[in-house]
Amino acid sequence: MKTLIVYAHPEPRSLNSSLKDHAVSTLETAGHEVRVSDLYAMNWKAVVDAADFGPNASNPLNVAHDSGRAFKAGTLAPDILAEQEKVLWADTIIMQFPMWWYTMPAILKGWVERVFTFNFAYGVGEHSDARFGDRFGEGTLVGRKALLSVTIGAPEPHYAPRGIQGPIDDLLFPIQHGILWYPGIEVLPPFVVFGTARMTSEDYPDIAKAWEQRLLTLESTEPIPFRPQNFGDYEMPSLHLKEGLEPAGRTGFGLHVRG
Amino acid sequence: MKTLIVYAHPEPRSLNSSLKDHAVSTLETAGHEVRVSDLYAMNWKAVVDAADFGPNASNPLNVAHDSGRAFKAGTLAPDILAEQEKVLWADTIIMQFPMWWYTMPAILKGWVERVFTFNFAYGVGEHSDARFGDRFGEGTLVGRKALLSVTIGAPEPHYAPRGIQGPIDDLLFPIQHGILWYPGIEVLPPFVVFGTARMTSEDYPDIAKAWEQRLLTLESTEPIPFRPQNFGDYEMPSLHLKEGLEPAGRTGFGLHVRG
Repeated sequence: MKTLIVYAHPEPRSLNSSLKDHAVSTLETAGHEVRVSDLYAMNWKAVVDAADFGPNASNPLNVAHDSGRAFKAGTLAPDILAEQEKVLWADTIIMQFPMWWYTMPAILKGWVERVFTFNFAYGVGEHSDARFGDRFGEGTLVGRKALLSVTIGAPEPHYAPRGIQGPIDDLLFPIQHGILWYPGIEVLPPFVVFGTARMTSEDYPDIAKAWEQRLLTLESTEPIPFRPQNFGDYEMPSLHLKEGLEPAGRTGFGLHVRG
Repeated sequence: MKTLIVYAHPEPRSLNSSLKDHAVSTLETAGHEVRVSDLYAMNWKAVVDAADFGPNASNPLNVAHDSGRAFKAGTLAPDILAEQEKVLWADTIIMQFPMWWYTMPAILKGWVERVFTFNFAYGVGEHSDARFGDRFGEGTLVGRKALLSVTIGAPEPHYAPRGIQGPIDDLLFPIQHGILWYPGIEVLPPFVVFGTARMTSEDYPDIAKAWEQRLLTLESTEPIPFRPQNFGDYEMPSLHLKEGLEPAGRTGFGLHVRG
């Protein structure tokens, strides 16, 4: 495998950093190639703006349109081009981050906003009443897999189906389905460590072992069966899931996972 | 009302900017006080790091713990203190932003991460097996209301209950429930403009009129009835919703809205 780890935590002695380091050593020892984007260490610019698009920034600025023009013309900012090159190099992408306010840290969200430009990650294919783009299972990044490795301060029951924070699968859906599956990346079940607020270093060996087992079986792990957009499951042009396709009682985000 | 508008868009001639300006003029004309945090214009630092906590940054850095110590000691960075002062001044908070990759822009997420510090917005109250903090309806920011004003490129059906992007209420839940209701802010139903990718300036007057009507009726609008954590709806210590409280067939995030 060629694995890109996109890592977002400010502290090199954090649990997130340890999990990132453990992924690097585990995968390299197993003969895989690994590259790391350590966003805090890189002082990654988190905010998309006109400076990202060089001479293709229009006035008034149109983020989607201008990012696509700059992508095609090769005038995106060098830090964006470097990350796009890593994404294209990789067959496997791991995002390592702490859950902050129910989603990824701003610095990682800013990585997505700046790197996943129009034409690179979205805005491809026919857009009409008959077809609405090559996305959700098709698209420019098909052939890749991704995995979220997430730490969460609160205990696991709070994220259960009836837990007050909402089900963890639903909280991760906008990332797994909306950011990764959208440009065609298959998503493996996430690796989530709960209850970190009350952990000590004595808890780490078991976590590291579980993480190692996930890493060493990535190639044989089945992805989450998100529904592809353009293969008959959805009405057009509404993109509503056709009636009756879902398992009984399933609603919400879960509709878009095959039963 | 004293309204704080937290606004996140890079282009002053955008729809988002127009909606922000229209909110300012509508509310001021009606006799209300308004302040605006224009995050792009302020060059808002989107990334939380040790520099935010002054002498209270510990080594290794602990974002939650250190932010609480710095809050109590008054050593948070000046830009954070200024925003906390605005939040405490306001009785109504409007977040005006475009939906980018299924959530708020990174610059606004970074506003939440840096301004909503420990002790200011979370980490208050008893934490035990009998009670898990003053939050979700209680907390430090009780007495305030908030409203999301969001623009979305794609058409509304894609965000319907069976739409491929997932229901809009579920996409906004981590913000409305997880960020706003968590520290005690009541959340009014969002103002969402769909289909902006294909809009022209001819569509604007109707949008502005609908927005104006929402703004002028904010004080009489009923908030979303999110369940409070500590008033009998949840089991302890699991924080699972008690069996039978939900309307028939409701699952997922929707469990945490009273029927």
